[in-house]
Amino acid sequence: MVKSNRRKFIVTAAGLAATTVVNGTPNMDTEKGNIAHQVYFWLKNPGSEEDRELLIKGIKTLRQIDSVQKLTIGIVAATEKRSVIDDSWGVSELALFKDLAGQAAYQIHPIHLDFVKNYSHLWSKVVIYDSLEV
Amino acid sequence: MVKSNRRKFIVTAAGLAATTVVNGTPNMDTEKGNIAHQVYFWLKNPGSEEDRELLIKGIKTLRQIDSVQKLTIGIVAATEKRSVIDDSWGVSELALFKDLAGQAAYQIHPIHLDFVKNYSHLWSKVVIYDSLEV
Repeated sequence: MVKSNRRKFIVTAAGLAATTVVNGTPNMDTEKGNIAHQVYFWLKNPGSEEDRELLIKGIKTLRQIDSVQKLTIGIVAATEKRSVIDDSWGVSELALFKDLAGQAAYQIHPIHLDFVKNYSHLWSKVVIYDSLEV
Repeated sequence: MVKSNRRKFIVTAAGLAATTVVNGTPNMDTEKGNIAHQVYFWLKNPGSEEDRELLIKGIKTLRQIDSVQKLTIGIVAATEKRSVIDDSWGVSELALFKDLAGQAAYQIHPIHLDFVKNYSHLWSKVVIYDSLEV
C-alpha cells in the first residue's frame, strides 16, 4: 500500500512536471520520447586517478549545453562480478534530451566540440548507446 | 539567465526531494552514491516487434521491486550513425538504486528471478554496465 501510494505520488508529480513552467523554462523530467545518450569512456591510463578526475571535470562542462536536460557521471560500481557485466571502462556519462533535435544540437554545440578537443587525449575508446524512451 | 534560474530551481527541488517523506516512503532522485544499472538486451529475433514488446512488458514488472527508485526502458534511437555508436541491441533498461545494497536486493528479488525465468528465452545476449554516480 505504501508502495502503491508512492507510485501514485510519483505519477502525480510527473504529471505536474510535464506542465509546469518555472522562470519561462519548462521543467521536464524523463518521459516517453526522451533520448538517453549513454557514453562509456575507456581511459588511456586506466590506473591514473588524476586522468579520471580530469575527464569527469570535462564531462561536467557539457551540463552547460542548453538542450541537456540532465547529465549524470559515473565510475565503475562495486557490484558483484558476473560474466554479463562489462566493468572494463573508466567513466560513464548519461545525458538526457527532450528529443532527437536536442541530441543533435548537443553534438555540434561549441561546448561539446571543445570538450572533444580538450579531453579526447585522455580516452582510448568510447562506446555510445542512444535510447529512445518508450 | 533563464538557464541559470532553471538550474537553481532544479537544485532546490532536488534538495527538497532528498528530505521529503511522502506516505512514509522517502522520495529520492538520482544523486551521488546512487547506482545506475544499465542493461542492453539483444533479441534472439531482432526483427520481431512482438518479441520486443513482450520483453518490454517483462522489464516493466521490475518496477515493482521495492529497491528500484526509477526504471526507464528504451529502444534504439534514430540518432546519426557513427562508428562509436552501438545500435545493434534491441531493448535497454536503466534501473536506479539508492546504493549497492538496493542493487543487490534487486538481483535476488523473486520478481527479478521470475523475469529471468519467463523472458530470457527472448534474448541472445545481455551486456550490463553498473555505474556509481559521482
